[in-house]
Order: sequence, then structure tokens, then C-alpha cells
Amino acid sequence: MKEFMGPDFMLRNEIGARLFHQYAENLPLVDYHCHISPKEIFEDRRFNSISEVWLGGRNADGTYFGDHYKWRLMRSNGVPEELVTGGADPFDKFRAFTEALELSIGNPMVHWCNLELRKYFGVTEPLTLKNCREIYDHCNELLRNDPELSVRGIIRKSGVAYIGTTDDPADTLEWHEKIAADPSIDFLVCPSFRPDKAVNIAKKGFSEYMKKLAASVGKASLGSVQDVMDALSDRIRFFKEHGCRASDHGLDYVMYRPCALEEADAVYRKALSGAQLTTEEAEKYQTTILMHLARTYHENGIVMEIHYSCRRDNNERMFALEGPDTGFDTIAQNSCIADLSRFMSALDMEKHLPQMILFSLDSTDFDRIGALMGCFQNDEMPGKIQMGAAWWFLDTKDGMEAQMRSLARLGIFGNFVGMLTDSRSFLSYTRHDYFRRILCNMIGDWVENGEYPEDEEALKKIIEGICFRNAERYFRI
Amino acid sequence: MKEFMGPDFMLRNEIGARLFHQYAENLPLVDYHCHISPKEIFEDRRFNSISEVWLGGRNADGTYFGDHYKWRLMRSNGVPEELVTGGADPFDKFRAFTEALELSIGNPMVHWCNLELRKYFGVTEPLTLKNCREIYDHCNELLRNDPELSVRGIIRKSGVAYIGTTDDPADTLEWHEKIAADPSIDFLVCPSFRPDKAVNIAKKGFSEYMKKLAASVGKASLGSVQDVMDALSDRIRFFKEHGCRASDHGLDYVMYRPCALEEADAVYRKALSGAQLTTEEAEKYQTTILMHLARTYHENGIVMEIHYSCRRDNNERMFALEGPDTGFDTIAQNSCIADLSRFMSALDMEKHLPQMILFSLDSTDFDRIGALMGCFQNDEMPGKIQMGAAWWFLDTKDGMEAQMRSLARLGIFGNFVGMLTDSRSFLSYTRHDYFRRILCNMIGDWVENGEYPEDEEALKKIIEGICFRNAERYFRI
Amino acid sequence: MKEFMGPDFMLRNEIGARLFHQYAENLPLVDYHCHISPKEIFEDRRFNSISEVWLGGRNADGTYFGDHYKWRLMRSNGVPEELVTGGADPFDKFRAFTEALELSIGNPMVHWCNLELRKYFGVTEPLTLKNCREIYDHCNELLRNDPELSVRGIIRKSGVAYIGTTDDPADTLEWHEKIAADPSIDFLVCPSFRPDKAVNIAKKGFSEYMKKLAASVGKASLGSVQDVMDALSDRIRFFKEHGCRASDHGLDYVMYRPCALEEADAVYRKALSGAQLTTEEAEKYQTTILMHLARTYHENGIVMEIHYSCRRDNNERMFALEGPDTGFDTIAQNSCIADLSRFMSALDMEKHLPQMILFSLDSTDFDRIGALMGCFQNDEMPGKIQMGAAWWFLDTKDGMEAQMRSLARLGIFGNFVGMLTDSRSFLSYTRHDYFRRILCNMIGDWVENGEYPEDEEALKKIIEGICFRNAERYFRI
Repeated sequence: MKEFMGPDFMLRNEIGARLFHQYAENLPLVDYHCHISPKEIFEDRRFNSISEVWLGGRNADGTYFGDHYKWRLMRSNGVPEELVTGGADPFDKFRAFTEALELSIGNPMVHWCNLELRKYFGVTEPLTLKNCREIYDHCNELLRNDPELSVRGIIRKSGVAYIGTTDDPADTLEWHEKIAADPSIDFLVCPSFRPDKAVNIAKKGFSEYMKKLAASVGKASLGSVQDVMDALSDRIRFFKEHGCRASDHGLDYVMYRPCALEEADAVYRKALSGAQLTTEEAEKYQTTILMHLARTYHENGIVMEIHYSCRRDNNERMFALEGPDTGFDTIAQNSCIADLSRFMSALDMEKHLPQMILFSLDSTDFDRIGALMGCFQNDEMPGKIQMGAAWWFLDTKDGMEAQMRSLARLGIFGNFVGMLTDSRSFLSYTRHDYFRRILCNMIGDWVENGEYPEDEEALKKIIEGICFRNAERYFRI
Repeated sequence: MKEFMGPDFMLRNEIGARLFHQYAENLPLVDYHCHISPKEIFEDRRFNSISEVWLGGRNADGTYFGDHYKWRLMRSNGVPEELVTGGADPFDKFRAFTEALELSIGNPMVHWCNLELRKYFGVTEPLTLKNCREIYDHCNELLRNDPELSVRGIIRKSGVAYIGTTDDPADTLEWHEKIAADPSIDFLVCPSFRPDKAVNIAKKGFSEYMKKLAASVGKASLGSVQDVMDALSDRIRFFKEHGCRASDHGLDYVMYRPCALEEADAVYRKALSGAQLTTEEAEKYQTTILMHLARTYHENGIVMEIHYSCRRDNNERMFALEGPDTGFDTIAQNSCIADLSRFMSALDMEKHLPQMILFSLDSTDFDRIGALMGCFQNDEMPGKIQMGAAWWFLDTKDGMEAQMRSLARLGIFGNFVGMLTDSRSFLSYTRHDYFRRILCNMIGDWVENGEYPEDEEALKKIIEGICFRNAERYFRI
Repeated sequence: MKEFMGPDFMLRNEIGARLFHQYAENLPLVDYHCHISPKEIFEDRRFNSISEVWLGGRNADGTYFGDHYKWRLMRSNGVPEELVTGGADPFDKFRAFTEALELSIGNPMVHWCNLELRKYFGVTEPLTLKNCREIYDHCNELLRNDPELSVRGIIRKSGVAYIGTTDDPADTLEWHEKIAADPSIDFLVCPSFRPDKAVNIAKKGFSEYMKKLAASVGKASLGSVQDVMDALSDRIRFFKEHGCRASDHGLDYVMYRPCALEEADAVYRKALSGAQLTTEEAEKYQTTILMHLARTYHENGIVMEIHYSCRRDNNERMFALEGPDTGFDTIAQNSCIADLSRFMSALDMEKHLPQMILFSLDSTDFDRIGALMGCFQNDEMPGKIQMGAAWWFLDTKDGMEAQMRSLARLGIFGNFVGMLTDSRSFLSYTRHDYFRRILCNMIGDWVENGEYPEDEEALKKIIEGICFRNAERYFRI
């Protein structure tokens, strides 16, 4: 029997273990999509307690911060909301979380939490109800005092080479400027362009957002779709000047309903007037904007990331109480792969298909994406179109294995740009470690079973590529 | 190599084998959903032959009894219907079934049949064409004479603590009353409320059923949807007085199309008039009734089980000959998870979301259900919303593993209420044994691979919970 | 660690390895669906180079020949089209392909290519950039000179007993006649009836094809749907006289929209007039024709193969340049299983349901097909309705295992008709070897784990059945 999460955690064969320790373990990491705050990086924030880092709480403006994965787990164990997102004592929350965690065999949370305790706090015993007080105090002591456990300390300790934050087109990028101007910051922190609010024409707040976007380009308003597209182009150039390599799109589903610009304009004016749009109308505007963005990304060498098949805010009662991103989202069921194909084909016809990373939250889409992307690869670069790593609800051992096996069967695994955290927490870099272990175990198993030659050079190239070098090349770091 | 279905059957690692024998094997079992007859329990029925138990035959009224799983297997081997559901010699049927079984490597039927032969008849050799005559005679001798092989004997030998039968709202529950009044019956047998006929407004026989339901509450007719809802509430209270803990709903798909009561009333009157309903009309009535039932279950502490994605009676020629439930159903392909979410959210808004167990016959729904249920858990109890065990076509080693892994990844595995038989046969309790072996093997593998601590207390709690204690708590047994 | 693709390649347990070598390895093979040319068989074609066989090139008429699987892999590695389908130097192409292959760990191409090098060219070292020149020269030398490496030589060396080619109803079958008349050809080569062009009423070229079909039955035109059906019946009889055992249908999705013959006629005339059809109209004609074909197959003992869920020609830019079948197809997402059920039921009602092999390119359909086919099995023969082997994008170790496990869980695995190549290349027969290894490994694992008895006779029957005898019986060879 293997030690619980010991040095060879997840590594079930000797070759995989050797490859992991020799090539993967200590490579720098490229975290090309996450939700951490550049302000907190610049200010080198410190945390008061592990409960604050893991379970969060409420901001001054009434919104919540923290890890909705953990909140869901607590609610699944019947924990009252007071101990989840409420104002209960931080240790009581930590204890209630520990109690849920002990029952969560097979859940990646067990691994994520214990990996974090090991890597950042030197705790090698598994977290249990019996030792949770002791661990709590130990972590808090380090969080408050250990110089390696400020935000920048954590980033350095994690070997991070590149962080791609998630930023609104109207953002001033002031914190990115300050970071760039600070020579003591020896890792790259770049903005990523996330124009969801400019795409979501049918969602609340669209008109207000258009004013904000207008202001960001020094205008009072954006009177037409052309104005919106020009503003977005402006902001893309601005982001690019600040090091932006990637955009990110969170779509309920991928649509493709092209129309004349006048038609899109009519829809836009209708939306600004406050009238309700039909699905068809919204899709016409959205297609117009997404096509424009994709073209502009291509011209600027910016990667287009598309995440789809998330259904948000399912529990309306709790949404009214706590707002978005508090643990009430789920996997949507779509049938949009044909429209994704049409969208990509239309861009390819114009020779303006950008580099793309395609993520779906529905694992039955892995093979669909894997087969589709083979239709749009070309000689702009190896692996121009990528299948995104297993994400959110799929960010598990099974999910990662399923995604990687699908990609390997249907494309060239050795060109994969690998893992991202998608996280709101600075301690989540251990997910790259988790990914690398699962990767090396899978590769080791293939070699052990005679399915790939034991060719050291080729294996080194593949593993280093997937863990670091492919992303370095893909994002031009 | 391991012995065929020996003591460590399905247990591929030492830890799993130990945990199974130490904690799981001998726990009592809660069979919270099945289709066995309370009359046969009360009368302590005996069987004439293993052919009768396994392959059944035709009732006096022309309907069939028996195991449609086995009939399908025989038809897949080209066996004439005379030997499947027809009047052929019982041994000839048994022999034809054995012939099909020998070719069915990888089919759970091989395991179910041989587990039953082992547990109830002491047969340790695998069933083959060579020994089928001998086994046939041996089983029949025991069935006719062994006191442990009457219906009650089988139930006791199986360690059953609770049986939830499946009953129509209009049922008198006379056999449940007799069972409750019989002090020699030392296991619980409770009715479950299955109001499908009151929901299926567009299916044949709806008007007749409304008369039957009316009669059960002492009325001549039910003139409005309000009357239907009142009658169902009455019957739920009546069922509750007879120990009912759970309801069961077999839906083609989950719909959510709320409407004013008057609209539902108009649909109801139209249906009673014999007119054809549109899908939209039917869904309005169904949503109204299902919302009412769910609220009433919540008020009465009754679990709402929803089974969906079955497509029934696919072979119209055979349906005309043999009627429903004779082996011609299949897995439906739906996209109703968003409506399931809306249905649950509407109930949660009213604070009337009952305990729910969600089953789909389509295994691609596991992750969708697993992610969705996390949006509706709360502090009424740990694991209030459950993902149902792998069911019917999914009731296989692969299906169980897929369901359990999905649940473990997305929720708290330790709160799972575990297995049910869904069976029409008294010998099917071995499926709980089958489930426990697969469960312990999976857990053992996680521990062996260092993915969960070898913490005896925690493992005991998780295994005993899933095998027995969670269901005991969930169904208030 | 096991040798790379050594004698026990894919065989992870002793029993499986023994069963493979003892029963599976040397059985003849039935390749019941492929795309190879009967002309090339008759003419006993030779190849100039391994680059020609693997990577193909351009025909005199501007169309392409070669392996689109390999082209996709090259494009995924950023290889310019000149080196993919273009006129570049054959060795440069081979080298660029080798470079992509080295990165393709986990892709079946690694296994297919190296299996072909081993079996036909005696190359036991894995193909790498370092040895690719040497291997290239070695293979070319053999291709040009080794008598075993002409087309017929390859077929004999592969142990092929039966080849089912894919032929248009209007085909003269002249090459099949010549093959049949040549006593030196000691394997069966039979035409398969592929009437897609007569079904695809909404696709370009339908009218022209109707003229061609008319000519094949000695008519100037086909004036009605009845005429089309009569012509197809004529051709089916003609094919049957030339040994045809199977038909093949490539459908985007399965439809079932029955109508009166007059309605279908109106649609047919509209199509011939050049007007655009609605989806509903097209489906009415298609349903009429497919029902007629199915009935006629049943009358003539011809198997109906249906392949669905392929979405073709996704990249419109490349389609304009290179035409169909050049590597731009993908997996479609459908929800047509209910219509497939209705189609089969309508045929069964008429007692005209033919033998059917059902393939979907979407692996989530495996269980749906597996459950559905159980509704239509009967005593015409064991395993009358078959789930087709893992195909195209699913033709991988994972895909095969998923397909076989699904089939085993839901039906009788021992009646499976097994593998086909679906290939355009004469070297692809190694895929049968690949399949047999994966099959025996899976069966060996079941036996080793005590899930099936170690009953030599039963295992021999199952393995020989799946590898050869079931197809021999099913196709009446």
C-alpha cells in the first residue's frame, strides 16, 4: 500500500514516477487562465487565517469571496449557511468543512486541500476532525508570519512563470502597470481580455456596461454595433500593449447566426431601448461581435479561449440571497457543436481563425471537440486549435484522464498546452502538481504496457512540452 | 487467478476485501425501491421451480410475470418466444436460458444468476449446459421444501431490514395492513406512493384511472385539478399512516411548464372529454400535479424519487402481443436537465423542496445530476438531494462504478444512500451484495493508491453509511 | 516493463495472452466493410513507396487518395499542406509524418503504423526521426519487389477470408466479375450495396445520379418514387447475384417520417425540378426509400449496415480546395435514437426487419444502441441485430473497449460479429490483430478476476465466434 499522498502520489508505475520526478515536478508553470487579483499581487497581500483563504467570507460591499467548491461540499453535508458563507466563527467553519471533507472520499477536494497543506504549510498528516484545531493554528501562524506565505511568496514558491488574470475590457489595468513597473516581481502577470459583458446583450446591465465601455475609449456612448466593435478593438490593442496574450469567453453555448450589420444594429438599438430580445435576435448580435473579436484576436496574435456549457444560478432563492459565483452553477446540456464548427469555418474562410482553446463543461463533448479541432489545424503553428484541460466540475482525476485520453486518441497529445487553475485562490497552484502526476502516471502506463517506446528523449520532449514548453510557445512567453 | 465468484469476488485489492468482510458483508439491507408483492410476503408464497422464479410465465389474466432481463437475453440468442414467455416446458426454458448465459461473458446476468445459486441454493459450480439439469432439479427440490426458501425465508436469509414496495395511490394497502398486524414478520414492509397514472394525462386509461382515484377517496368523480390534488393529498396521508417513506415517479422526461390553475383545469377537462392533448397542454397539467405532490411530500417527510429517460414499448408488434414490461423498453435520449433545475428551484423558492433521489437511465446524465444536486443541498439534512444508484440498464459493474465515481467527484460520497434492487424477484437481494463488493473494491483501491488515508474509523463510517446507515437515516427507519 | 508492441502487445494478463495466441491470432478474418478497390485486387497492384501507401497523393482527375487520418495528424503538427496532400517529395512527407507520429503518444496511429511495419515489412524497431530514412528505403524496396507485397499478396498474408467492398448501386461490378472468374483468387471479394446517393435527395448531384441509376436498369429516367424503388430492387438482385451479403448506409442521422407514396412522389418531382427541399420533405422521401430498401434486404437475406452521426466537410475553405474525404469530417451530435426505434418497429410490424448492424460515431450512443437492439432480437438468428464495432474516430483502444463493454453489459457478447477495417488501405488488416488483442485482454481480465469461469470450451467458442465464426455465420460465407 502506498503512503497517503506521499512522494509518488498518483504514480502507480515506476516509469511514470521516474518521469515525474525527473522531468515534470520542478518545471516552472504557466497559469494561463485564473481569477486572482493583480492588486493583491502588487500589494503582496497576507491572509489572517486558513479559513479566510479556503472558505472566505463577505466583502464590504456585500459580495462574497472564497471557494464555492468548498461551500458546495459543506452544504452537501447539511451545514447551515451561517457556517458556509455566513458570519460564524472562522474555526467553526474550518471544523465544519473538515467534517464534510472526511466523508468526501473520491472527491478532488481531499487531494487539493491536503496538497496545499503539504506544500505551503509542511503538514503531512491528513486533515481530520482530530487534528483540525492544531492544523488550523499552525497554518494561521505561518500565514501571518512566514515570508514565503505572502501572495508573492506563494507565487514564487510555486514556480509560477506566467499568470494570466481575467480582466474586463473597460479595466484600466492599473495594477498590471504597477506590477510591470516593479522590478522585484520576477514572474509575468498579464491581463486576459474577457468581454462577456459586451457579448451578453440579453443579460441585465448590458446598457450600463455599454456606457462603461464607451468611457474606457473616451466616448459618451456607443451608438452602433460598429462603435462597439471599434471600442473592443481599441481595448484589445490597449490590452496587448500591457502584455495580453489571451482572451476568455464564458458562453452558455456557442451560437452561429450571421447577419448583415444593419440587422445587428437594429438588435443593438432594441436592447438599449430596454426591450426584450428574442433568442434569435440576441444570437445575431452575439455572432457579429464574436466574429469581430475573433478576427481581431487573430490579427493581434491573441489566443481565443472559449468555455461553454455552464448553466448559472440554478437556485433562485440562494441567488437572490448571495448573488452569482456562490456555488449554484451546474453543467448545461447543449447541442452546439455544429454551430461551433460553422463559426470556426466562417473564420477560416476569411483566413482569420485565431488560435483557440475550446473548453466544455460537459465531458461528453471531449470527443466532439477532439474530432472537430482536427478539421481546423494548419501550419500557422503546431497545435493551433487546442482542447482545453478538464475544467471546473471536470477538474478531477477522472476528468483529467478522460480529457487527456480523448485528446491523445484524436489529436497530437505532445502538442497539448496543459493545465490551468481557473482559480480564485493563490494556493491552487498545487493543481498543476496534481495534473503533472496524473499525466506522468498515464504516460508511464502506456510505456510500461508497450504502447509507446521507452524512448527517453521523446518522452522528455512530450512531458516537458505538456507541462511547460508548449504553453510557453503557444502564449509567446 | 481468482476463483470464479469466490469469497473475494470483485475485490481486487487486500484493503477492499478486508473492508468488505469486516464492515459491509453482514450489514442489514434497506431495499427502498422494488416491485415485489406484499400479498406474496404476507402469504409467504413458495415457488415450484427455479424456472418459475427466473423466467416466469403467464398469469391467469393473460399478463406475464417474470424477469424481462432474462427474456431479452434469450431473444438475443435467437430463442423462439415459445421458450421465452410462451408455454414451453419449464426445463427446456431453463436450458435455453443457460445456453444464452454461457455466451454472455461481461453481462451482469452471469453474476446475478450465479450469486443467487450460491446464496440461496448452495450451488458453487458455475451454471453451464452440462450441469443445468442437475442444478435445476436441486433448486426445485429446495424451493419446494426448504423452510428458508419461502418468500419470508428468503427475505430473512437476505438480512432485509426494510422493503419499500411500489403501490398505486388508489391501493387499499390491505396486504400492508395484514403484514403490520402480523407479529411474526420481523422486517419492515412499507408502501411507496407511485402516482404515475395520475400524472400521465396523455396516456390511455387516464379517465378511468381518475374514477378509480375518486373512489379511493369516497367520491364519484374528480371534477377539477384541485379535486385531483386534494385526492392525492388524502392518499399521501393514508399512505403515511401505513408507514410510507417514499414516493416514486417514472417519467419519460422531466418537464417544467408552470401555469395558472385555470389553465391546468382546462387541460384536465379536455383530457376527460377524450380529446387529444398537445405536448404543451399535457406538460402544464403534469407540472401542476408534480409541484403539488412535491410540496405535499415535503410537508409529510416523504422522499421523492424520480426515475427518467426510459423509452417504453419500442417494439409495437411485440407490445400488441405481450403488453408492457416484457422486455421491449430502452434508454431514452433527453435534454431535460434544465427543466429539472427549474422544477427544483421553484420548489426551493417556496421552501418546499422535498428530499429527492434522482435517477436517469442515461449514464451521460450522472455528471449532470451530480453537479445539479450540489445547487440544492441544504441544512435540512446531510445529503438531502441524492443521485440514485445505477439502475436497470445501468445496473452493472461498469454502471455502478461510473455512478459512484461521478457522485464521489461531485458530491459527498459518504452520504450516499446506496443500492436498491428495483426488482420483481425475491432472489434479487444478492444485488446488494454485488454492489457492496464493487463499492469496497473501489474504496480499497483509493486507499491502496494513497488517495484516501487508511483511517479505519473514517472508512468504517463511510462504508457502513453507504451500505446501511445513510438509508436508515434518510428513510427514518 | 513490456517490450514495445512485442508478441504480447496489449495483453496485460496471462490468460488473455494465452487465449490470444491459442485461439485468436491465426484465425482467418472477415472484413465485412471497407473501401478498397476491387480493380486493384484484380490487377494485383503494386506500390512504389510506403509514402504512397500511407500518405497517398493526387489522382489524375484532381481527387486525392491516401489516409485522411494521417493527414489530420500532420496538420495538427503544423505541417504545411504541400507536405500533407501536396506535391512535396515523398520522403519529405514521410519524414514530416514521422515527426508528428513521435509526439502522438496515446494515438492509435502509433500502433497501426508500427503494426504494419512489423507485419508486412519485418521492422521491429519503432519508427522515429532517426531511423525513418532507413525504414523508408527498406519498405520501398520490399513494396516494389517482394511477391508477398502486391495487393493480393498482402491479402493472403493477412489471412483474409472475405472482403466486402463498398459499391454504388449503378456500378457494373465488372471487377467483381473478373475476380470471381479468376480461380487463382482464393479469398472471397463481394460487393456491398451503398445507395447513399439515391437516399440523399437534398444533396448536390441527386438528379444526375437518378439518370445514372436509370441507365443501370436500362431506362432513360426514373419518373416516380416507385420507379426509383423498382430500380433499387433490380440492382439489389443484381448485387446479390454477384455475391453481395451486405448493404451500407452512411446517414447524417436516422430519420423516420412515413408518408403516403404520393407525398413522397411530390417531393421527388420537386427535387428533380431543382427546387430546394425542406428538411421535412427530404425526410419523407428518405423514409420511403429506406423502408423499401430494408424490406428488400430482408427478402434477399442482405444485412443492413447503418453508420450515422458523422458531420462532413466542416472546413469549407479546405473543402473548396480538396473536396470530400480529405480529413475535415467530425462527430455529429444527434438525438435520433427514438426515430431509429420507430424505423425498426415499423419494419418489425411488417415482419420485414432485416439483419442490422448499427454504428454511431458518437460513443455516447453505444448504450443507447445496446439497449435498443435488445427490443428487436428474435429467433431468425442469434444476434440478428448487432452493435457495430468501434468505428473511425472511435477505432482506438479506448473506443473498442467502450464498445465491447457496452455490448457485453447489454446483450450477448458471444454473438458479436466483431471487427471491420472501414479502410482505404490494403495494409490495414492489422487492425483486426489489434482488435483481437484488445478483445482477449478484456476477456482474460474477466476470467482472471473471477468474473467468468475458466471454462476452456466456452472461452474458445466465444473468442473464435467474435474473431471469425459469428461473421462467417452472419454473412453466410
